[in-house]
Amino acid sequence: MTVEERAPTDLAIDAGRLFDRLDALAQIGAIPGTSGCSRLALTDDDRDGRDLVVSWMRDLGLDVTIDGIGNVIGVMPEPSGAPVMTGSHIDTVRTGGRYDGNLGVLAGLEVIETVMAEGVHLDRPLAVGFFTDEEGSRFQPDMLGSLVHVGGMPLEEALDIADADGATVGAELDRTGYRGTAPCPAVPPHAFVELHIEQGPVLEAEGHRIGAVTGVQGISWTEVAITGQSNHAGTTPMSLRRDPAVVAASIAVFAHDLARRMGHPQVATVGRIDLHPNLVNVVPASAIVTVDLRNTDEQKLQEAEAELGRHLEALAADHGVVIETRSLARFEPVEFAPHVVDLVESIAREQGHATMRMPSGAGHDAQMLARVCPAGMIFVPSVDGISHNPAEHTEPDDLVAGANVLLQTMIALATDTPEDHTVEER
Amino acid sequence: MTVEERAPTDLAIDAGRLFDRLDALAQIGAIPGTSGCSRLALTDDDRDGRDLVVSWMRDLGLDVTIDGIGNVIGVMPEPSGAPVMTGSHIDTVRTGGRYDGNLGVLAGLEVIETVMAEGVHLDRPLAVGFFTDEEGSRFQPDMLGSLVHVGGMPLEEALDIADADGATVGAELDRTGYRGTAPCPAVPPHAFVELHIEQGPVLEAEGHRIGAVTGVQGISWTEVAITGQSNHAGTTPMSLRRDPAVVAASIAVFAHDLARRMGHPQVATVGRIDLHPNLVNVVPASAIVTVDLRNTDEQKLQEAEAELGRHLEALAADHGVVIETRSLARFEPVEFAPHVVDLVESIAREQGHATMRMPSGAGHDAQMLARVCPAGMIFVPSVDGISHNPAEHTEPDDLVAGANVLLQTMIALATDTPEDHTVEER
Repeated sequence: MTVEERAPTDLAIDAGRLFDRLDALAQIGAIPGTSGCSRLALTDDDRDGRDLVVSWMRDLGLDVTIDGIGNVIGVMPEPSGAPVMTGSHIDTVRTGGRYDGNLGVLAGLEVIETVMAEGVHLDRPLAVGFFTDEEGSRFQPDMLGSLVHVGGMPLEEALDIADADGATVGAELDRTGYRGTAPCPAVPPHAFVELHIEQGPVLEAEGHRIGAVTGVQGISWTEVAITGQSNHAGTTPMSLRRDPAVVAASIAVFAHDLARRMGHPQVATVGRIDLHPNLVNVVPASAIVTVDLRNTDEQKLQEAEAELGRHLEALAADHGVVIETRSLARFEPVEFAPHVVDLVESIAREQGHATMRMPSGAGHDAQMLARVCPAGMIFVPSVDGISHNPAEHTEPDDLVAGANVLLQTMIALATDTPEDHTVEER
Repeated sequence: MTVEERAPTDLAIDAGRLFDRLDALAQIGAIPGTSGCSRLALTDDDRDGRDLVVSWMRDLGLDVTIDGIGNVIGVMPEPSGAPVMTGSHIDTVRTGGRYDGNLGVLAGLEVIETVMAEGVHLDRPLAVGFFTDEEGSRFQPDMLGSLVHVGGMPLEEALDIADADGATVGAELDRTGYRGTAPCPAVPPHAFVELHIEQGPVLEAEGHRIGAVTGVQGISWTEVAITGQSNHAGTTPMSLRRDPAVVAASIAVFAHDLARRMGHPQVATVGRIDLHPNLVNVVPASAIVTVDLRNTDEQKLQEAEAELGRHLEALAADHGVVIETRSLARFEPVEFAPHVVDLVESIAREQGHATMRMPSGAGHDAQMLARVCPAGMIFVPSVDGISHNPAEHTEPDDLVAGANVLLQTMIALATDTPEDHTVEER
């Protein structure tokens, strides 16, 4: 049997090669004593990681382009046409794991190497990219590179964003040598599919290996500022208090109970509580809490926001405090292209994997690409649901399974079917 | 009528002189744009304040002694015998008011100047002192000087206490010139009575000018450390969370409700909540909260502690978190000498002031002196109950009223009655 005759479904990626590249990239910015990495966007470590991945892209003979926000895309030199693209990011949070983002980029590289080595016939090329500052740990907002890539933010505006020390994205791109010339927004790919660790516990808890991601939850972030009356903890009777700490605490308890009451997939998190002055024996003068509400259903998300709003009004009246709110982020839910979701699910099942459809609770570059092309995602399990942590881990078999689902999904998307022709001829 | 024939009850302090001294001391460490002061214990500003008050003591002809922990006491040169003592502290919290502590010291000085100027006959001398580091803002524990003064902590142990920057009490006493030679513990005074602002809203709310303080609430400070599981706020279903923030919040709400349910004088405060990592989109890994419980009744305080403990156990089970507690402070309630409380109350009423008996919710030097001699306190109102804040204020008429109640109380305590002789002869 010649390479040309071999059915694409028999193909499999080279697991050893994938693991070697994951290990090599994880050495850059490695956190001593852990398996984790610290490569904040556009730092020296991020630059070193970029250089390594770009060298692998060039070794494969890909056409490498860098755009004005530093996104790097490697495209197979043939055939011509809009590519079927994959990719993710290689920046990490300050104390991150080795798979978040990196898996999607290096599995994409592995998919392309496999396809090229096997001489698989495709109707359009494959591409793999990594997007700048997906984590948002250094420059806000997160998913910055993919946002600019699809035209969601003007390039000039993005270049002016500064980190906490005042260094701008533009200056750091220049410093690291990653301010490229490819235009933003870019010409959209034919389709985009991203492999990513789940970063949550659902696949593991449900006993599934592959998640066919249906979309991304809508996100509502609200900062609540509470102003009361600071007083001595010993001398102020309860009836005369206007205590922002109790109000902040009540918000956290309410948000938790609200999500439990609304049921899955509603989630609610109070991740930040700042009391001022935050001393054992002082009724605080003020408090700030953040409320993170997410749901895949925009209508239900709005209901959750409304319920929170009513609770805040009641708290202000009951406790004699002033409550002010500010929206920190608000994104409606994103739905991935049904045919991409179906494809991921069917290929995963064909490969014998326990597979479930699921929304993503986290934001990903794929949601930005979904604005300009059919997009989808593949999830593999995160052990104990841990992510954004050096202890983040995904079992090797799961990494390989995800990469092979990505392989077949990309081949399928890059191969014309009669339906494709019908669509294109309309 | 000669000075000698004048009845002591006609005496009154010189309000202008008291206000001038309060103003002059408040200039040292003044917080610009406010009426407040910042004189942390044994800083340069505290030394300058000490120097000023000592110069006033010396101007009056008092015998000034400084003990090994830097407490300064000025005693009338005659008559001989154990003095009737007053005093308080002149250190402040970092952003403090001008009356907390300072009023008690300068009103004491004013009482002695009034008595000496008028030549009032006393059977024992009066004394006024200021104690080191009452606030505990720089060196813990608070009330350090009076604690050492009465033998509650060995001097050598106190001298080794370091501030957040590693400077020790002993070194700072040497640096400021206030490591004295008078022994600790000291010979107890005949009696001790302290004038202080209430630092709470009760007198104002009840329409009273003078509080005859019956004792000091028992204090129970518990630090609660909660360890859960950090996770992504979007990807972790509510049912799989072990969220320390929700547990911390539940503790704060429970403590508040507990105090409301137990009723006055039980108070409960969660003044500190620290989430880690304290980010909008991360279920925290851990949380620390402090719970401040106070009651005048030791039995009820123990009940409150037990209820809190049961709630913590239930929370640990319900939320799958690990909860560890640590006692930061535990003082049983202090009861002041009944005859001193009665004296303060009757003198205040004789002087025409609306007067109420009340416990102190805050700790004061008088509670330390109560270990070694009959002690009591006089409270005057704090506007809006505000203290430990540059906005702390007490109306001038109330300052004067408190000083005059102190004057007559000290004269009465320093004047033998037939009962005193009976007691002394036993």
